[in-house]
This record gives sequence, C-alpha cells and structure tokens, in this order.
Amino acid sequence: MEFSSKLIEKAVNEIAQLPGIGKRSALRLVLHLLKQPKEQTTFLSQALTQMRENIQYCTNCHNISDSLVCEICSNTNRDHQVVCVVEDIRDVMAIENTGQYRGIYHVLGGKISPIDGVGPSQLKITTLLEKVKQNQVSEIIFALSATMEGDTTNFYIYKQIAHSNVQISTIARGIAVGDELEYADEVTLGRSILQRVPFEKSFKNN
Amino acid sequence: MEFSSKLIEKAVNEIAQLPGIGKRSALRLVLHLLKQPKEQTTFLSQALTQMRENIQYCTNCHNISDSLVCEICSNTNRDHQVVCVVEDIRDVMAIENTGQYRGIYHVLGGKISPIDGVGPSQLKITTLLEKVKQNQVSEIIFALSATMEGDTTNFYIYKQIAHSNVQISTIARGIAVGDELEYADEVTLGRSILQRVPFEKSFKNN
Ligand SMILES: [Zn+2]
Ligand SMILES: [Zn+2]
Repeated sequence: MEFSSKLIEKAVNEIAQLPGIGKRSALRLVLHLLKQPKEQTTFLSQALTQMRENIQYCTNCHNISDSLVCEICSNTNRDHQVVCVVEDIRDVMAIENTGQYRGIYHVLGGKISPIDGVGPSQLKITTLLEKVKQNQVSEIIFALSATMEGDTTNFYIYKQIAHSNVQISTIARGIAVGDELEYADEVTLGRSILQRVPFEKSFKNN
Repeated sequence: MEFSSKLIEKAVNEIAQLPGIGKRSALRLVLHLLKQPKEQTTFLSQALTQMRENIQYCTNCHNISDSLVCEICSNTNRDHQVVCVVEDIRDVMAIENTGQYRGIYHVLGGKISPIDGVGPSQLKITTLLEKVKQNQVSEIIFALSATMEGDTTNFYIYKQIAHSNVQISTIARGIAVGDELEYADEVTLGRSILQRVPFEKSFKNN
C-alpha cells in the first residue's frame, strides 16, 4: 500500500498492529476519524494512554482493577474460601453477569500454550499455590476454556494441589441451555453424557 | 457490560465508537495492548493525534496530502486535462496501483446519499465544476462505486457539465478479469454485454 501522506501511513501502520485488523480496515478507521470532530481522536488517544499508563491489577486475584484490591476481593459478603480460576477479566465479567457465583476469582492472565510460547511461569500460578498452601482456600473451581490449552493448564495446577485437602472442581461442560441436541458437537455431547448429574440437581438452581 | 476498572471501560467505550468494532472486540484490543509494551499504546495514540491534527488536503484535487499540493497534482508528467472523479483516497490508491492512469484526480470526499444525510453541498463538487468552466479540463472520468449513490452522484455532476465541451466517460463495468462467467451477477453480466467493446480494443492495452 502506497500512501499519499506519511501521517496516514503511520496511523494505518500502528492500527494494523492490532490483532484482527488489516491495513484495509485500518485505513477505513482512519478515514472515519478524519470525518469526525477532532475531539473524538483526542478522547480515543487519551483513553488509551491513560488506561495503559495507570492500569492496576488486584494484588489478591490479579484481575484488572483501579485499586490495589479489587471490588470483588474487598467484598466481605463473598466467600473468600472459594476461588474460581479464570484466564482473564472477560471470564470474570461473564461469570459475574450470571449472578450465580458468590466466591472470589484468581485471574491467571492466560493459559499454558507452548505454541504461543506461554509457559507456567508467565501465568499467575505461584500465588494461587501459595494461597492453597496457607490454607486460605477450601475449593478451587477451574473455569478455563474447554480447549487443549485450558485442559493443560487445569492439569498443571491440579497436579500441584491434588495432595492438599482442597476440593477441586471444574465448571460443567455440556449442551448449552436452549440448544438442539442434534446440532451439538460429538465431544460436548459425549462429555455431557459421561458427566451427567442427578436429575433433581439439574433444576434445583433455576 | 460491567467493568472492574473505569480506565478499561473508558478505553473500550472510545474504541467501540469506531465503525464495525463492538464492545467485545474493543475489550479484546484493550487486553492485547495491556500485554504489549507501553510504547505500542503511546505510538498508536501519538500517530492518531498527529494524523488528526496535522492532516492536509491538496488544494487542487482534495486528496489527503502532507503538502498544499499533492504529489500527483504537482507532477508535470501527468495530464492535468484528464480528471478522474473518485470518492476518497482509497480509490486514488487503487487506481494508482494499476499503473494504467496518467491523468489527475478529483476527490469528492463521499457520494450523494440522502439516507446518510450527505447532499451535494457536503462534497467537493463546486471546485470540479469551476475547473470545467475555466476550460482546465478536457475529459472527466467517473470512477465512483457502481451503487445507487455512485450513479446518483455521477448523474448530478453530469447534468451540470453535459452542456460543456468536456468529454465525459465512466470506467467500464464488467466481468472481472479471471472470473468465471457463470458466477457473475446478472446486473454486471448485463452491463458487460450492453457495453461491449470492439475485440481489438479488448487486448491492445495488455
Ligand atoms: Zn481481586
Ligand atoms: Zn492533488
């Protein structure tokens, strides 16, 4: 792509470094910003810089937070003995949205993925093990994606806490509520049969 | 969406104002920036602000440029009597890429689109008419999208220069080079039959 303006070229190249945005889309975004009042670009740039400069992580659960201890961890009405292990803030938001969970979280910051060069040391695993060791936890709930990376991460942590007397569980995998059985993929359907639950349990939380 | 951080929320909301980017994608982009070195966010923000603050438009053709007169308009080897009318910089880039055009451009900055509230007065049409009036142009080539808006815009300009002795043409519509006939849409195929060209003409430029 040859640009008639270095300013455009630079902006397009920076935007195109973001995942999932090619140079064509980047140029489309730049042309959009040029049609909007200058303030929109100023506000966008400021929001990004301030976010990146001032972001904090909860010292207890490692979730993104604007304070040293996040709102969930500082909420005394929540059960601090039950810890749900998730990948990132999006999973925390998704589970919080259900309104079904009253424990706290532990945000790993990723999953073990040799292909992407992510090993256990790049994740917040030691602080979780430390909590278990100090008997601060009664139950660990794994809530990582049902992918090979998720399973690997679960198993890596599991091996190191299996000897403790912490109860270890994982969120149920199965047919999504409202889904037609015939369209479910084999693996999910298989798991949902193997991991069947007593019928009375299946409606008692509704 | 409820965020555990106002900084994240603000950044997500600003990004999600861009066309085609929802809050989910915006959050994904924000989390990506958080994993990259701070500099990436700084460079991105600076590139956007500098672009928006300092952008210029060629006083002759209205294309985006870093100088008062763009490189194409200031190139004396190009035919300034032949003016290709396009919507925006992307069309200029696309046509320049072909290496087939030696005239100059006139960038309208959009198409007439009542639905989007874009009327003729928001486009750079008067300067084009002025050039025609002052006999600075021998040929006008319409190269707008083959959409209703494109056709409307072509026709609006056409009506005002039809009386002049400027030659008015439009880029050919037809089956794309390399495309199978059977997969072409009817309208395109219809046009390509009606606007058939002498066979010798069809290969002389190759
Ligand atoms: Zn926390
Ligand atoms: Zn120009």
